[in-house]
Amino acid sequence: MGPKSPGRSAGNGRAGREAYDLATVLDIAVAAFNDRGYEATSMEMLARRLGTTKSALYYHVAGKEDLLRLALDRALSELENVLTRDDAKNGTAEHRLRFVIRCAVQVLVKDLPYVTLLLRLRGNTEVERQALARRREFNNAVAKLVEEARDDGTMRADIDARTTTRLLFGMVNSIVEWYRPDGPVTPDRLADDVISVAFEGLARAAN
Amino acid sequence: MGPKSPGRSAGNGRAGREAYDLATVLDIAVAAFNDRGYEATSMEMLARRLGTTKSALYYHVAGKEDLLRLALDRALSELENVLTRDDAKNGTAEHRLRFVIRCAVQVLVKDLPYVTLLLRLRGNTEVERQALARRREFNNAVAKLVEEARDDGTMRADIDARTTTRLLFGMVNSIVEWYRPDGPVTPDRLADDVISVAFEGLARAAN
Repeated sequence: MGPKSPGRSAGNGRAGREAYDLATVLDIAVAAFNDRGYEATSMEMLARRLGTTKSALYYHVAGKEDLLRLALDRALSELENVLTRDDAKNGTAEHRLRFVIRCAVQVLVKDLPYVTLLLRLRGNTEVERQALARRREFNNAVAKLVEEARDDGTMRADIDARTTTRLLFGMVNSIVEWYRPDGPVTPDRLADDVISVAFEGLARAAN
Repeated sequence: MGPKSPGRSAGNGRAGREAYDLATVLDIAVAAFNDRGYEATSMEMLARRLGTTKSALYYHVAGKEDLLRLALDRALSELENVLTRDDAKNGTAEHRLRFVIRCAVQVLVKDLPYVTLLLRLRGNTEVERQALARRREFNNAVAKLVEEARDDGTMRADIDARTTTRLLFGMVNSIVEWYRPDGPVTPDRLADDVISVAFEGLARAAN
């Protein structure tokens, strides 16, 4: 992932200030946080990766924590938006659950590095803890759908509800670790496969 | 997780040297690597967490990388051992696959922090890359079982083989992120649930 607007010298602060927009700075920061870990990444390191100066970076953001906050907010807002859509609010629990899983897979794929960052959070700082709280709220909304689908008899209820939800999330969230957007499986196909495996399992139906 | 043999002053190097065995040092190191990230953890920090001195730590290991290598070797050896057992080598592909998944879940639970460390590796150092190569070999052995079970008609083959294996691993590996050994679900029950959800899915069979 390289800067999106290269071609201008960023050798001094002034030029650098305008050579990169916030979106590019965020992309680079998220890549570094994912590669090296947030704590091991410095503004100095980010400036080097962008080929600019630290002072140019501070034109965009107040510091490293600000970058983390903006990046996590992007991933969380996308996920939260899913829950506000009509199909997430109307229809059977199974319909709503399938819709939310489908959209979550699409968000994971579209904002892969951002969601990766979110899913790897350890909760060491206040910004991380706030993001984890928002992530928990999203997870709780999905867990509620699972509960409803168990209650109305669509989903099996012989397995602990929490385990069910966690295994479902485990499968969905693992996507950030292995999915390659340039590979043979399209995001739509991936969403179909995840939903199919989650609901019907991997055994051949005839068995 | 605290030191296993407290009660002796570790205020000076000599006393510290004998106050902690390697297993305790490893436990503390793995906890710190998982909490803070490997790169952000120093020998100084580990010594502080152990209530001992840096020089006492160097009695046990050559340095931080040595601790990482030993910790990853523990997780990998446990997983590799699974593949050498009779039930992993004899019987139908489905029997072997179910056995390997069951044992892998048990290893994950037994060595939770060690496997967590393994699963979060980014491959930034030679030690990490060697561990990732061993992990890939284990994964490939499981992927081969999935292939066999698809070929003999036990597992559905309408989903890309790689996607199938990755979703299976996603579910199994997620355990390190959420399973609480002191919670209501025993390791044996967890293994049953994982295998059941993976093969039969979350939809109620009647549907």
